[in-house]
This record gives sequence, C-alpha cells and structure tokens, in this order.
Amino acid sequence: MKIALAQINPTIGAFEQNIGLMVNCADTARAKGCDLIIFPELSLSGYPPRDLLEQTGFVNDSIDALQLLIRSINGIGVLAGCITLNTEGQGKPIYNTGVLFENGEVIGTAQKRLLPNYDVFDETRYFEPGRSSKAVRYKGLRLGIAICEDIWNDPSMFPAHIYHVDPVSELARAGADIFISISASPFEMGKGSFRRQLVTHLSKRYKRPFIYVNTVGGQDSVIFDGASFAVTPDGNTVCQALDFSPDIVEFDTDSLCGEMHPVSEPREEAVVRALGLGLTDYMRRCGFKKVALGLSGGIDSALTAAIAARVLGRENVLGVLMPSPFTSQESIEDALELAKNLGINTLTIPITGVFDSYLKTLETAFSGRPFDTTEENLQARIRSNILMAVSNKFGHMVLATGNKTELAVGYCTLYGDLTGGFALISDISKTMVYSLARHLNSINHVIPERIFTKAPSAELKPNQKDQDELPPYDILDAIIELYVEKNMPPCKIISMGLDREIVKKVINMVTRSEYKRHQAPPGPKVTTKAFGYGRRFPLAQGYMWKL
Amino acid sequence: MKIALAQINPTIGAFEQNIGLMVNCADTARAKGCDLIIFPELSLSGYPPRDLLEQTGFVNDSIDALQLLIRSINGIGVLAGCITLNTEGQGKPIYNTGVLFENGEVIGTAQKRLLPNYDVFDETRYFEPGRSSKAVRYKGLRLGIAICEDIWNDPSMFPAHIYHVDPVSELARAGADIFISISASPFEMGKGSFRRQLVTHLSKRYKRPFIYVNTVGGQDSVIFDGASFAVTPDGNTVCQALDFSPDIVEFDTDSLCGEMHPVSEPREEAVVRALGLGLTDYMRRCGFKKVALGLSGGIDSALTAAIAARVLGRENVLGVLMPSPFTSQESIEDALELAKNLGINTLTIPITGVFDSYLKTLETAFSGRPFDTTEENLQARIRSNILMAVSNKFGHMVLATGNKTELAVGYCTLYGDLTGGFALISDISKTMVYSLARHLNSINHVIPERIFTKAPSAELKPNQKDQDELPPYDILDAIIELYVEKNMPPCKIISMGLDREIVKKVINMVTRSEYKRHQAPPGPKVTTKAFGYGRRFPLAQGYMWKL
Repeated sequence: MKIALAQINPTIGAFEQNIGLMVNCADTARAKGCDLIIFPELSLSGYPPRDLLEQTGFVNDSIDALQLLIRSINGIGVLAGCITLNTEGQGKPIYNTGVLFENGEVIGTAQKRLLPNYDVFDETRYFEPGRSSKAVRYKGLRLGIAICEDIWNDPSMFPAHIYHVDPVSELARAGADIFISISASPFEMGKGSFRRQLVTHLSKRYKRPFIYVNTVGGQDSVIFDGASFAVTPDGNTVCQALDFSPDIVEFDTDSLCGEMHPVSEPREEAVVRALGLGLTDYMRRCGFKKVALGLSGGIDSALTAAIAARVLGRENVLGVLMPSPFTSQESIEDALELAKNLGINTLTIPITGVFDSYLKTLETAFSGRPFDTTEENLQARIRSNILMAVSNKFGHMVLATGNKTELAVGYCTLYGDLTGGFALISDISKTMVYSLARHLNSINHVIPERIFTKAPSAELKPNQKDQDELPPYDILDAIIELYVEKNMPPCKIISMGLDREIVKKVINMVTRSEYKRHQAPPGPKVTTKAFGYGRRFPLAQGYMWKL
Repeated sequence: MKIALAQINPTIGAFEQNIGLMVNCADTARAKGCDLIIFPELSLSGYPPRDLLEQTGFVNDSIDALQLLIRSINGIGVLAGCITLNTEGQGKPIYNTGVLFENGEVIGTAQKRLLPNYDVFDETRYFEPGRSSKAVRYKGLRLGIAICEDIWNDPSMFPAHIYHVDPVSELARAGADIFISISASPFEMGKGSFRRQLVTHLSKRYKRPFIYVNTVGGQDSVIFDGASFAVTPDGNTVCQALDFSPDIVEFDTDSLCGEMHPVSEPREEAVVRALGLGLTDYMRRCGFKKVALGLSGGIDSALTAAIAARVLGRENVLGVLMPSPFTSQESIEDALELAKNLGINTLTIPITGVFDSYLKTLETAFSGRPFDTTEENLQARIRSNILMAVSNKFGHMVLATGNKTELAVGYCTLYGDLTGGFALISDISKTMVYSLARHLNSINHVIPERIFTKAPSAELKPNQKDQDELPPYDILDAIIELYVEKNMPPCKIISMGLDREIVKKVINMVTRSEYKRHQAPPGPKVTTKAFGYGRRFPLAQGYMWKL
C-alpha cells in the first residue's frame, strides 16, 4: 500500500483553512496513487488549542469540521488528528483522536492514551485518556495507530515510567502490521535524533515498519519541526520529509521504499530555521508583515536582525538606532554596517534629549541621589517607548533582542529591552548567540567582525562591560544549562567542578528574576526548557537551596 | 475528642518557617487540651509550589522537613499536608498526602486521589493520584481523610463528573466515623457558600461530622481564604475560623460543639480583604514594604490606593500625580483630596516636558502623521517609566491600577498602565470597582464623591471619555462576566437579550488583546475566571465564533 505522510502547518481554530490544506494534500496524494494519507495530531484544529478546548463552541465547531472534512475528501483513505467527544458521562469531555475514514465512512479511531502534562503540555487539563489500543484494519493491513506521547513510554528507552501503560506493546499484541504515530512533537535541539532513535528501536523491537508524521509550524512559543519519516522493520529510515516546512512524502508498505527529502544541518541551521519559522508563523497569524528592532551594535540585535531579514525579507525589517551619551562610536558604526550588509532600513533616533528631560523632570524627586540602575533602566525604557511608538505609528511588530542568559539572571530591564511582540532569541544562550551568528556569517558574511570581537556591553553607563557585572559567559551558560535545562540540583553542579560561590550567585539571580520573566514577551522554545509557558515557578516564595 | 483546626499561612518552600508556625499552633492546641491538630493541604511546603516540585532538591528537602516536623511536635496528634514519595517505580514521583503522626510515629497517611488540573491548578503535572481511600484509626475514631479536591466529585452536587471515583463514598464505605478535608481551596466570590453547601450535603448524606481545614494566604495570584469550619451530621456549622487570616478553632467530636469566629460580610468586604491579603503576602514574600502608584483622579487608582493604605499603612503608600496637558484640573484636585483623606504622601511629576521631548525626538520619523493612539500610549508609557524610576530609586513596588474590564478588552497600554509588580484590581470589573469603592466609603469616607460621579476618562487626548470608545460599562461587564467567567458561548449571550453587534465587538476585543495580558503583572484572582495563570489561550490563532 502507498501511504502519503502529509505534514501540514494548520492554524489553531482555522477549521476551514485547515480543511483546505488537507484537501489539497489529499488531491496530490491521490494523483500520485496513494491509498492512504496521514495527517498529524490534531491537524484539523491545530495544536495546541489550549483553553479554546474548554469552550463548547470551539469543540462543537471542531466536531462539525470533522464531518465536513470527512465529506470533503474522497477516493483515498485519510487518517487525521481530531477532537472527538467523550460520551461516557464521566471523565473529561473530549478525546485527542486519530480518525481513519474513506469515502464518507469512518473506518476506525484511536484515542490518545498517554496525555503529556509536563513542560509546555497541559493535555490532562482538557482530554480524557483513551482506555485501550486496538489495530484498525484498512485494505488488508492492520494499522497500529498511536497518538504522539503514546509511543513515549517504552520501558527500555525511558528510565522513568511516568505512565502506567505502554500503548505500543498493546498495539503489537493486538496484531498491528505497521505502527503509525501521528504527532505534534515540538522541536528541541537534539530531539530529532532522539525521536529517530526511539522509533527505530520500536520498529526493530517489534519487527514492524513505523510511520511517524509530525506537524509543522510555530504556535506562539512552541515550534513543530515536521521532519516526518518512516523506518523499515530493521530500523532503516527509508522515507523522510523536510523539517520546518510543510511537505508530503510517500512510503510504500510493500516495497518498504519511500521518498527522502533533506533535513537541516548543521544544528545551528536547524535552530535558525526553528526561530525563523516561529517568527513568521507568529507574525502571519497575528497579522504583521514588518518588524522593528533596536540595533545597538551588539551581537544580540545583530543576530535577531539577520534572522528577521532572512525570513521576512530585508524590506520588512527596520533597524532603529537609539544612541545615548554612553553609546560608543563603534557601536553606531557596527549597527550601520550590519544594516547595510543586511540591506535593511534604519532610523536613528537619539535618546539624549528625552533622557535629559526625564532627569530634569525627576530632579526634585531624586535630589541628592546618585546615578544608579534607575538611570540605566530609564534609558532602556526610553528605547522601548520609542520602538513601541514606531510600532503604533507604522504597524511594525517590535522584536525583543534579549538572549536566554540575560533573561535567566535578570540582566535586562522590565519594560525596557524586555519588550516586544516576540522575543526571537530568548531561548538562545549568549554562547549560542555567537555560534548562530558565526553560522549565518558562514553562509553570507553579514555581521561585522568587530561585533564578535568586542566585549559585550549594555552601554547604559560609562565603561560598562557585561563581564564586570556577570560571571564569564561560558561559566554562566554552563550553569544555566545544567540548572534550568537539565534541572540539576546545585550541589551536583558544584560537584562537576563549578565554583560554589558563582553557582550560588547565579541560582539566586535566576530565582530572584522570576518576576521579570513573568512579564516577558513570548519567544520560540528550542531547548529542553525555555522560560515561559513550560516553566512555572512561584514568583513569591521562600525556598532556599541548601548550599 | 477535641480537635484543633489550624489554618496557617505557610510560605512556599520556607520549610523551617512553616514548621515554626505549626509548632506554635500545636503548643496552643495542646495547652487547650486538644487531642489532634489539623493543618491544611501541603501545609509544610506551602501551596502551590509549582515547578519547585520538579526539582529533586526541593522534594528531598520537603521529605527531610517532614521528618523534622514529626520530631518537633509531641504530646498531640497531628494531621499535616505533605509531599511524600511514590516508591512504586512508575507514575509521577510524588504524592500530595495527609500524614497523621503522634509522638514521633506515623499513624496513617491519605494520598490525594482527585488531582485538579483546571483553571489555576496543575496537579497532574506533578502528582501521582492515590489509589484508594481508607479510614485511619486514631484514639478510637476512624478518620476519613480527604485532600481538597477529593470531596469535589459527589454525584448529586456536580452535574459533570470529570473524575471516575468518589473518595468520600469510599471513605464512608470504609467505615469512617468522621470526615476530614485538608484543603488549599482558593477564594472566589461565592465559593465559600458553595463549599459550605457541599460539606453540609456530605455530612447529612453520610450522617457524619465533617471537619474542613483550609489554608490561608496569598500565593502570587491565588488567594486562600481560610474560613475553616466543622459541621455536625445534621448539617449545622458549629465551628468556624476567621477568613483571610491565620486562626485556630476547636471542635469537640463528642459534644459536637466548637468555637465560632466571625467571617467577612458583606461580599464587598470579603473581596477587599482578599485583595488586601494577596497584596500584603506578595509584598512580604518579595521583600517590599512600600508601594507607589499613579493617582489619576479616577476611580481605579482611588480604590487601589485606598486598599493599599488600609492594609499597608498610609505611610507605606506613595501616590504619584503625573499630569499632562490633557489632565483636567478636577482630576488633580480629586487625586490630591483622595491622598489627603487617606493620609498618604504624594509626588507630583508633570509629564509634559518629557512628552514634548519625545514628540520632538520623533518629529522627523513621524512627520506628517496625525496624533493617534501612538501619542496616547506614549503618555501612558512615560508615566510607567516615571513610576518604575521611583521604584528603582526608592524601593517601592509599583501597583498597577487597571481593572478587569480594561484588561479584558485591551483598553490599556502595554508597558504603560499595564505595568507594576502587582495589579491589585485586575480581576475586578469596572462595575465592581464602584461597589468596592462605595463599600470602603461606607466604612470611612475617603474617596471624594466627584470620583464616583464624573465620567471615566483615560485623559490621553482632548475630551476623551471611556464611553465614547467602549460599550456602556454595565453592558460590557455583563458580557465579560458571561463570556470570560461563565465561559458562555456568544450565541447564548446574545439569546439572553444582549445586542449581537456589541457582543461580537466585545468578544473580538477580548480575543485580540490576549497578547497584552500575556505580559501583564500578576494580580489577585477573586472570580471564577481571572486573566493570568488560570486562563490559557493561544496568542496567535484563527478561531472565529460563528455569529
């Protein structure tokens, strides 16, 4: 049987539009002689719809949309991810379901059994888990349909078994000839290869082919990378879809052959594409075409501008230079050279007049008090106000340019640099900011060399250098990776050879800046643990690590 | 048996401090001759610890703290809410448990079975549910211990059964002589009486006394109101603790008598106390003593200032007047009179100079463009910048003064009035703002009458009135209550007699302003659905109600 793996980029709640995408894919697949087309998890509604799932109108419209979808595609079998109703009278009101239909008839369904409820996932908030896994017969083949998380509890792959059942083994026992996973599995660095390892392991363990169809697109902070694939019972990948882009590939269950499309390499390229997809989808869905961002002459705004120019087109990126008395000539030169290299427009709006006017206005209230972070923050907030004014006046979305390291330790100004519609590199450590910038330069040398070599500075007071106020970035980023991303206890971090006092200082900074992150713009998640939706700490609390 | 209901206000993660509170309460109860003292759900760690529960260090420290607690209290039985480990090798790693101990020995435990995972609750993210409910024998009495949500699935009280088991009926079958619920049940308007109704129903249904111990305190946006109580098997409340304050009350299981302390009345007083508790606890735990807020001369900032002055003391509240050319003389007079009535200090910092300087700075960039919302937002953001400068310079926490109605429809400026450490009235509709203000005035006439009678205005352009830009507040608030709080589909709202076009407009405004709320400060929740942690909608999405 010929099967099309159709990774679409649905918009949450845009049922008609999503059906349109699915009908188009089905037309293509039918024309190529496929017997079955497979769409990702919740492909009809988009994923994750979050609290829209608590609105009965949304759920009803979703049910209606499924009926419309079933009527809209003929002449090919379709497996699509949809919301279905729980009619048992108890439990949560809906299921996350794979529905197999053909020519107006539903052939079978599979309800998601393992509901992820960690990090960015809140599925037990909405869904009732399915109670059993059975194979669905289609054209002589028994399909073992699993929904995303259902395959993530194999006893030999996962040391911690947070779930009590393993749907894959049940499907195998139920006689499935082939496994099919329909997923909405978010991108993270390194996750693609783990997914591959998992699916390969399962194919080999159960000696069956495995088709993995993942959704694609940016949904607020979550980026789905697609990269759907199929493997043979001996674990060879013989079918591969693109990553970070909608795609259809064919897989033949008889010949065990399929189409192979390329995926992004190296890792830096994958991350840049993830950020780009996150940005374009967020803007498209919010109705923006253009972005504005502050160009400081530093590496963060340079990387942000370069990615924005690459995915939005240079004509849609406006760089705003906002020099103060503390801004060096080099910074202005570097920002202008970057803009020239990228071919983006710039506006130069010095903040000195406004800054002076604030100082004058506050003179009486602040009399006798020395210059401190107040005046530093003031400058950052003036810049934010100017960027937001540009946004309000001309309709640009403001891009925040802060990196993950700053956000982690609170080395950023609330309502200052922490403002904007989208914080493009908020999950990228300072160390990785440099790697991504180097990678972009290796394709096209757009970021001036001096931006890499000069010492990073906020330039909010004379002779300020990040490294006078923070631990060295390589150490800082190592600690943040271990503490935030790997959730490692501080004592273990110290036992790895990191300085106790620095670890203590950094973790205190992370804890104390929770309130800033609470009000930060959304930004694309590319690591195992990003700040934002998937990391939920109390703001006011009294826990102290024993150190 | 004499039982003490001890509603403490634990700080999340401050184990030693929380043990101190519990030891003190136990001393008091022992001295009064009580046999048993009961503390609320997760009283040892505070509730909700959120992702601290994913840190092994926190969990281990919590386990150690339980051992310390068990050693610290003697001569009285103790039932306390604690984290315990799941040692079964599968499932989530911890339980939410009631631990009964006496003189260094654990007598019995009850693991929470129903894990709420809606609104502000994320319990399935962390906890494994308990599998059964058994009575625990203590001094000849079989105690039926339920943890919070465990009692919220009675088939006759809840039309929707989102859970598959009813622990209370199991405890009854297991022969419990008395029911005990240890809870962390957040305040909402009207919830106290529903809790009472539920517990009364259960006592009468099973003909047993019922002890309900609720935690107290503000934890970020969630306010626990305490108001612990006990009812007799025929449903009479014979024991009552204070609301919005730590308290201990005694209940005698033999005589079925107990202490009765007063609770807040009317509803407006309860809401004001909830807000006050939320504010004081947030500030205390974040290390703030003083607040600063903008005084516009309007009702929102008046109410915010009045509540702050009441709970923090007038010496800890600074009102900042920031007049612009659009500020009326009346507004300044009203703000100053309010401040005088409250006895709070004021600072007057006109924004005209800074505003002009922005206009001049932006003149070239904006040349030929008319005054629009850009310039309105600019003023709101200048005020925010000044308040934040005051905060940075003197250590005040900034109070945001926006109400729920504005937040719902986005009638507020991101990084402008939507800034601050705590948004005190962000879950209070405009209509209720007036009721609360009237209530405060009925106790002590502090808010000038003209603030009630004049038409609300943002005063960001000449002759601006809220009601020229928004539907009438009574209609607007009715729609928001039905749509946001009662989660009613728009068609049903319209069928209740509300104008179709206005309903459509309001719901579009609510949907389109999700991005503003994403970056809003935290604020205390007092309704069934507040914006913030418990309301999770996608920012970028395509769902359109059929209207």
